[in-house]
Amino acid sequence: MHKTRLEAFSDGVLAIIITIMVLEIKVPHGYDLEALRPLVPVVISYILSFIYVGIYWNNHHHMLYTVKFVTGDILWANMHLLFWLSLIPFVTGWIGENHFAPIPMACYGLVLLFNAIAYTILQHRIIKSHGPDSILAKAIGKDIKGKLSPVLYLAGICAASVSSWLSGGIYVLVAFMWLVPDRRIEVLLQHRKEQEAAKEA
Amino acid sequence: MHKTRLEAFSDGVLAIIITIMVLEIKVPHGYDLEALRPLVPVVISYILSFIYVGIYWNNHHHMLYTVKFVTGDILWANMHLLFWLSLIPFVTGWIGENHFAPIPMACYGLVLLFNAIAYTILQHRIIKSHGPDSILAKAIGKDIKGKLSPVLYLAGICAASVSSWLSGGIYVLVAFMWLVPDRRIEVLLQHRKEQEAAKEA
Amino acid sequence: MHKTRLEAFSDGVLAIIITIMVLEIKVPHGYDLEALRPLVPVVISYILSFIYVGIYWNNHHHMLYTVKFVTGDILWANMHLLFWLSLIPFVTGWIGENHFAPIPMACYGLVLLFNAIAYTILQHRIIKSHGPDSILAKAIGKDIKGKLSPVLYLAGICAASVSSWLSGGIYVLVAFMWLVPDRRIEVLLQHRKEQEAAKEA
Amino acid sequence: MHKTRLEAFSDGVLAIIITIMVLEIKVPHGYDLEALRPLVPVVISYILSFIYVGIYWNNHHHMLYTVKFVTGDILWANMHLLFWLSLIPFVTGWIGENHFAPIPMACYGLVLLFNAIAYTILQHRIIKSHGPDSILAKAIGKDIKGKLSPVLYLAGICAASVSSWLSGGIYVLVAFMWLVPDRRIEVLLQHRKEQEAAKEA
Repeated sequence: MHKTRLEAFSDGVLAIIITIMVLEIKVPHGYDLEALRPLVPVVISYILSFIYVGIYWNNHHHMLYTVKFVTGDILWANMHLLFWLSLIPFVTGWIGENHFAPIPMACYGLVLLFNAIAYTILQHRIIKSHGPDSILAKAIGKDIKGKLSPVLYLAGICAASVSSWLSGGIYVLVAFMWLVPDRRIEVLLQHRKEQEAAKEA
Repeated sequence: MHKTRLEAFSDGVLAIIITIMVLEIKVPHGYDLEALRPLVPVVISYILSFIYVGIYWNNHHHMLYTVKFVTGDILWANMHLLFWLSLIPFVTGWIGENHFAPIPMACYGLVLLFNAIAYTILQHRIIKSHGPDSILAKAIGKDIKGKLSPVLYLAGICAASVSSWLSGGIYVLVAFMWLVPDRRIEVLLQHRKEQEAAKEA
Repeated sequence: MHKTRLEAFSDGVLAIIITIMVLEIKVPHGYDLEALRPLVPVVISYILSFIYVGIYWNNHHHMLYTVKFVTGDILWANMHLLFWLSLIPFVTGWIGENHFAPIPMACYGLVLLFNAIAYTILQHRIIKSHGPDSILAKAIGKDIKGKLSPVLYLAGICAASVSSWLSGGIYVLVAFMWLVPDRRIEVLLQHRKEQEAAKEA
Repeated sequence: MHKTRLEAFSDGVLAIIITIMVLEIKVPHGYDLEALRPLVPVVISYILSFIYVGIYWNNHHHMLYTVKFVTGDILWANMHLLFWLSLIPFVTGWIGENHFAPIPMACYGLVLLFNAIAYTILQHRIIKSHGPDSILAKAIGKDIKGKLSPVLYLAGICAASVSSWLSGGIYVLVAFMWLVPDRRIEVLLQHRKEQEAAKEA
């Protein structure tokens, strides 16, 4: 019950975040293809952020699937994550409008970094309340991706002062790393089902 | 469970897409009927896109009704469809502001084409995971509408260079083709119920 | 199942409509009370429209509560209602920005009129599919409010050419008429419960 | 059933309110850190309002958890609360744009005050319909926080004429007071469970 509303609220906020980013793609006054050219960096940054929000929704979805009850701690850790996610449209618009200038690119990475930290905090709170034997704790395992991402974001932030392309490349890399579907939880649930089926037989 | 949240997120995104389009109908400064005249093409494009998003919601609703479980593939195919749907407000605003100029009209068709492709990919992923005997696979059948639409969109894109009216007419035609309610899945579910009732008797 | 998603989608659209209206209350540049004065008509129009959308949500909620299955007809009649509701923010902004000028006031009434018509169509479609013995059919009864509203909206539209205050007064009157909670369906459900309890005893 | 849709609608409106506030953080044209400086007060006001809306969502969530049925009174008391919550983005934008000038700060407090009043009305309506023995009535108890908040908001409004910092400090204080998780309802539910477990043993 509790959980349902937490999911519904998070879904709502994520749906709005992913959709208001499109408002940054301002309708041009011209009516030829030339009029679309200034929009190219805006659209590229939109695509990258769309994928990032999609990844967060996907992982959030899998993580909350394992949650059995919601504490005040979890509620606020989730709200904290939503706060950082809500800043993604701003930095997306900023890098798009300034053609991936160094400082906006570093800020973009910074917001991604804080999102990663907020996600990790939420994960810790859920595991803490559900115990080390919970599905999530086991599914996460060593959480290599989760530990690697902040390091890569930091690398991307530093790289922005050298080259925006390098910085952007690192952010794209992290996105691809997560796009490879995070089947850890799915695999564990599958495994558990098989064990139960074996017991019954 | 899984499916519920996928539907909820898609509903949220679709509800926002259909509603933010209305923000393009900017409140005029004048207060006579004359002030409304520049809005006529904006409103016409809004109506057409409203119907298109409505059709997608309707078909998406019917398609997901047949889904029994959600895989990572389905999640991302759905996200891909939402991406293309999210570009509809942009092209709608563009054709509205430029009184259906040729290049915006072609771009409008292009976005519709990519939506149709993304929808077909989602359909294929669901059928692939649910098997050729699934309700969806049977309900789709030869999928004449689904195969005809991309061809008509292409025709509309090409027609834009000749006449915006012809191009727009083709897009309206496709919308009407889909507005005729897609009862295929409903019919099959009905048929199945009758068979079950017959068995019981 | 079907119904749940129809409700969820309508809730989403209504929640967005009611909230984006607040975007018309533009943040003033000044920082004294004087800066708020131009916002007075905008806020008044916002309050009226907020109440109207609230009434529609409330009645929609009660009406769909009686629905047992959803047909293609109902889906599209609902979409048609959502279309007219989505135009409320536009006319609200228009009357607010132009201090309730006659033509914007008439347009406001026109959009309310079309909303009332769309609501009536949806009601008819539900009753048609659920039969004259359905809860809704009985609860509606003679539907005096539903028949009176369009007449009053028409009166308000005509009155706009004479006096904006008269016109606005009529719209406020209709809102109050509906604000008196529409307990018809509640009463009938209550009645049914009592009958069942009587049978059991 | 009834309750589910009330929650869903409120979640939708709250999710949109919390997210459209971010639209006030306008993408700057510059691309250096200097360009971000004018945004500092906007971001600070966003954080405060984000926390306030989060608190309202959290408390609303807990309060509705205890609700067993929804009356017309509750529906409209909830709508009234949503109205005042919908004004938060406006006053947030106003204090942010004017660097916490006295009159905007007082208006911010005024909107918070009306939110507190609307929340209290909703609480009263729920308790009135569910009886003095309801979970909510017991969980609220003396409702010290609920009675203290309006007094503090009033203090903040008055303090704005002396010092914006004092006024802001009071609003932050109230937020912190509520951020301490409102475990009253959780505690009572826990207590009830234990009693039931004791009875069974």
